[in-house]
Amino acid sequence: MKRIAVLTSGGDAPGMNAAIRAVVRNGIYHGLHVFGVYRGYTGLIQGDFKELSVGSVGDVIQRGGTILYSARCDEFRTEEGRQQAVEQLRKHQIDGLITIGGDGTFQGAKKLTELGFPTIGVPGTIDNDINGTDYTIGFDTAINTVIDAIDRIRDTATSHERTYIVEVMGRDAGDIALLAGLAGGAESILIPEVNSSLEEIIARLKHGADRGKKHSIIIVAEGVGSAVDIGRQVQKATGFETRITVLGHVQRGGTPTAFDRVLASRMGAKAVDLLLSGKKDMMVAIRNNEVLGIDFDEANSQKHHLDLSNHHLASILSI
Amino acid sequence: MKRIAVLTSGGDAPGMNAAIRAVVRNGIYHGLHVFGVYRGYTGLIQGDFKELSVGSVGDVIQRGGTILYSARCDEFRTEEGRQQAVEQLRKHQIDGLITIGGDGTFQGAKKLTELGFPTIGVPGTIDNDINGTDYTIGFDTAINTVIDAIDRIRDTATSHERTYIVEVMGRDAGDIALLAGLAGGAESILIPEVNSSLEEIIARLKHGADRGKKHSIIIVAEGVGSAVDIGRQVQKATGFETRITVLGHVQRGGTPTAFDRVLASRMGAKAVDLLLSGKKDMMVAIRNNEVLGIDFDEANSQKHHLDLSNHHLASILSI
Amino acid sequence: MKRIAVLTSGGDAPGMNAAIRAVVRNGIYHGLHVFGVYRGYTGLIQGDFKELSVGSVGDVIQRGGTILYSARCDEFRTEEGRQQAVEQLRKHQIDGLITIGGDGTFQGAKKLTELGFPTIGVPGTIDNDINGTDYTIGFDTAINTVIDAIDRIRDTATSHERTYIVEVMGRDAGDIALLAGLAGGAESILIPEVNSSLEEIIARLKHGADRGKKHSIIIVAEGVGSAVDIGRQVQKATGFETRITVLGHVQRGGTPTAFDRVLASRMGAKAVDLLLSGKKDMMVAIRNNEVLGIDFDEANSQKHHLDLSNHHLASILSI
Amino acid sequence: MKRIAVLTSGGDAPGMNAAIRAVVRNGIYHGLHVFGVYRGYTGLIQGDFKELSVGSVGDVIQRGGTILYSARCDEFRTEEGRQQAVEQLRKHQIDGLITIGGDGTFQGAKKLTELGFPTIGVPGTIDNDINGTDYTIGFDTAINTVIDAIDRIRDTATSHERTYIVEVMGRDAGDIALLAGLAGGAESILIPEVNSSLEEIIARLKHGADRGKKHSIIIVAEGVGSAVDIGRQVQKATGFETRITVLGHVQRGGTPTAFDRVLASRMGAKAVDLLLSGKKDMMVAIRNNEVLGIDFDEANSQKHHLDLSNHHLASILSI
Repeated sequence: MKRIAVLTSGGDAPGMNAAIRAVVRNGIYHGLHVFGVYRGYTGLIQGDFKELSVGSVGDVIQRGGTILYSARCDEFRTEEGRQQAVEQLRKHQIDGLITIGGDGTFQGAKKLTELGFPTIGVPGTIDNDINGTDYTIGFDTAINTVIDAIDRIRDTATSHERTYIVEVMGRDAGDIALLAGLAGGAESILIPEVNSSLEEIIARLKHGADRGKKHSIIIVAEGVGSAVDIGRQVQKATGFETRITVLGHVQRGGTPTAFDRVLASRMGAKAVDLLLSGKKDMMVAIRNNEVLGIDFDEANSQKHHLDLSNHHLASILSI
Repeated sequence: MKRIAVLTSGGDAPGMNAAIRAVVRNGIYHGLHVFGVYRGYTGLIQGDFKELSVGSVGDVIQRGGTILYSARCDEFRTEEGRQQAVEQLRKHQIDGLITIGGDGTFQGAKKLTELGFPTIGVPGTIDNDINGTDYTIGFDTAINTVIDAIDRIRDTATSHERTYIVEVMGRDAGDIALLAGLAGGAESILIPEVNSSLEEIIARLKHGADRGKKHSIIIVAEGVGSAVDIGRQVQKATGFETRITVLGHVQRGGTPTAFDRVLASRMGAKAVDLLLSGKKDMMVAIRNNEVLGIDFDEANSQKHHLDLSNHHLASILSI
Repeated sequence: MKRIAVLTSGGDAPGMNAAIRAVVRNGIYHGLHVFGVYRGYTGLIQGDFKELSVGSVGDVIQRGGTILYSARCDEFRTEEGRQQAVEQLRKHQIDGLITIGGDGTFQGAKKLTELGFPTIGVPGTIDNDINGTDYTIGFDTAINTVIDAIDRIRDTATSHERTYIVEVMGRDAGDIALLAGLAGGAESILIPEVNSSLEEIIARLKHGADRGKKHSIIIVAEGVGSAVDIGRQVQKATGFETRITVLGHVQRGGTPTAFDRVLASRMGAKAVDLLLSGKKDMMVAIRNNEVLGIDFDEANSQKHHLDLSNHHLASILSI
Repeated sequence: MKRIAVLTSGGDAPGMNAAIRAVVRNGIYHGLHVFGVYRGYTGLIQGDFKELSVGSVGDVIQRGGTILYSARCDEFRTEEGRQQAVEQLRKHQIDGLITIGGDGTFQGAKKLTELGFPTIGVPGTIDNDINGTDYTIGFDTAINTVIDAIDRIRDTATSHERTYIVEVMGRDAGDIALLAGLAGGAESILIPEVNSSLEEIIARLKHGADRGKKHSIIIVAEGVGSAVDIGRQVQKATGFETRITVLGHVQRGGTPTAFDRVLASRMGAKAVDLLLSGKKDMMVAIRNNEVLGIDFDEANSQKHHLDLSNHHLASILSI
């Protein structure tokens, strides 16, 4: 193994740059040449490679986004596109590829492995929805972004009898909503994994108001519904004034937290170690504070699991 | 003048607590007894007064919200309500009242003055929409909150050809949108003071895309329209993917900036000085870095003015 | 078990309030009366107890410090002092006590257990130096505070050939220095657990400068030495300009991160569950993401372990 | 005027990049070619020029530091060095130069003007110590950095009878200490402009303690003395435990505040406008919210003035 490449793909996540830095520097430390592939699988197909030096990844550990850019790539979903990608890798004499991203990224990576190209995945997505790893890069930053918003709303919430509804990311996974809701002290947390009828939420709101609660904050994962719609229904049913916040892509950015930088540094370095020891077809994971490689198949074998005991805890603590 | 009272009213704003602290401590420094009135004009009518000590306002300078709470009060809009308020003030032997809030607050304050009760207003609102003062308490914090959101969006915006629309507060005044848009480097800023047709915005977006611009951030003051609606129209007309952020009451909270704390400290102290020198029927203002008192009538004589040269500058700098 | 009490002791840590909130609300949820003891063991001896309601711990989850205050207590180190403490607990009909703090706190807690009083400890200290738990409450916030400082230094560090030395907390444990140094991309990390001679550091600095590195950031745990002293020696030996930052108690404050709030919420709730299930003489710990109770003896049986592989990783990644 | 150049010099300040962006984009808007000069006057002498495009200054408005780097330059203090600089400017056919920095920067700029080269200065320094302008770029960010530190200390300060001493920047000017001290609610503020004997400070501390004050925060501008030394003396004289924070270069970094970005954008654009209208030998200033050009001589004619009424106010409000 003499030359490796690294790319980022899918929705970006804070900490991706820290992971790229770790790949580059751990690679160079072990005598490798490390190439960056720009704009994900698109750049892979088009041969948009550039060798990265120690200095190329200086002053990036703290930056959100990804210096390699990311992009969607429909072409890579075709057999032909993937063949072209492997040709480019061969043409640039790359011996191994590290892909940083989420589910879609790894499905692509697996296809490359099937074509015989050694590939290691690093889980980078704010959604924390990858099976087999306790955490993904970017998740900790995203929930801190959300609780900063909740804290600000709480500052102003004490004065008026109002209901605040905050819509956060999470189409299929309620991780951001659940952890941010628990950490933010939200009164209700609506996630795809738990069926909460609007009746329950309204009953809870009214019960709170009866007990003298001045205001309530409801966190909604986007997969459950739109904050605007839910707000209208709540306001109609309770008569409480309702105010909406939709954070949107604010959650994808920001300087990564210490947790995400450490995780990204460890995972990026591990990906290089795995390639060097002849591994392929693997995703880097963290389990019980240990960073290790697991088979892509294991990562994909079952749905990501959300610990619902935190949902119960949040409801107890926000009484 | 031996006993004064202070209240906060209307939408709360970061820095209100710093202003309350300044009123209390400057009052006590000058030998006064200072009373807090809870929940704005509602507490004034109901006699919800409590004497505040030096310690009552310890550890509050950095807190968002208002320790005196705020509330709307329909009753105060009636002659009878205001009579009751003055009776309460007389009953508690209060010699002067300081009201911290926005336009509505000062209309109430002026009515009290007309009933013969010495009242001084302190402009506290994130909207910066009070005539006669260069800045209101809370505005600087709010625009910093907005640019933090814009910065995060920018982190993620570089990867995809997308248009991001951020809706900020400002029903009648575009101050938050304009200054935050200029400071955030937004490509378009839609404010009530400037007629921008959707056609222009779309033309600007397309022109940017033609020049290779990957993404655009549009700031919309809520008075202009809903980000959701504008987003739909833009997406339809351009075909660019559009993503929405609605910050909502996030903008009302947060720890106040240094600017807002200094402004609030100076204004709160000045309000006491004005009462002590026999003034009434006045609002505290800052002009050319000087804190002074101006007649309520002057404050209300004309509409708050927004410096539109900044709008032109923002469009030059975001080419 | 009908009445329990909770106190905080030792150096305070961000997240202590979130832990108190969890104790109070989980207690009340289970039908208990929960009392706060003010100023740690001092208040325990003096009988400074106050019953806490659901509302007492509203709006505190995001606050640094501790609403119960903390204090040193020499008296509690005497047999007599501890007897008085138990008498106060009995007098107030308290059935179980939860103490939130660090090493010293738990030594006190153990003594109470020996006197027959059921006590559960919750690890709250920024130093992360408690054996038996992967994390202590406050540690994650502290390292984020440190990396914010490092990031700011880095902004300015690119212009001049300078060496920046940042002294952080950690008398006996290098956890803060190590994780913050890794996350901050520091060039050298000096911790009590690893002997680094000044010669090595200076050699590393010179080597970096030879390779064109413009600046270096060195993190020093206070247990290793004073940044001022080390700075003088480095400057003398290398001739590089050296600039010093000593963060001090800045590291103890700040709004807790999501991680610390979730940890504190889970740990505080668990402490109540342990008391309710008849446990005593235990500390709450987190291991492999699971919150559980471990014997005080186990917690004290060996020295807290620091994963030094991160030290090696940091040196690879900051080449 | 067809080609202009811009450089940053001296200690860097948050907002310098926003000023560079404004110079570049306003220049290009007016049909100019704009060149960046790297590493201040050093790059000017060495001919380190690069043409900047609209895209060169994309995504920099929010970054601390300076993308053009800064450096000290002893050579520029010689007649010969300055002659070389002018030759380089002529060689690159530059018609006007914009220098962003502090006092030393402008002394250099003035010398260039004396050699016949049109030069405009933009005040960028966290110290706010330039005469003739109400604010310099970077000052607002720096005081917000300091109050963030003070807020964190305050979180932990409530528990123990301690004195916290925070040393901030300001060799000759107390602006940072004074405004941050006022905004942070510090009990004492020691600045070069006001003689405060150690006796007074100690008396104030003891008086506070007698009144029940648990802790005090003292802000010291570095020009007054070292926090370590003052801390030792205070501890010796009062017996109170004393804790030290030295922020150092943390104050020079960080993402610029909205205030600094708006100021930098307006000032940078104005510098171009001044060159275009044939002005030279001028510094851009902000006075009474208006951005304008003033003669270098006026800027240097008298010492920067600090409004000491804020010092008195801070002492009243921290009783």
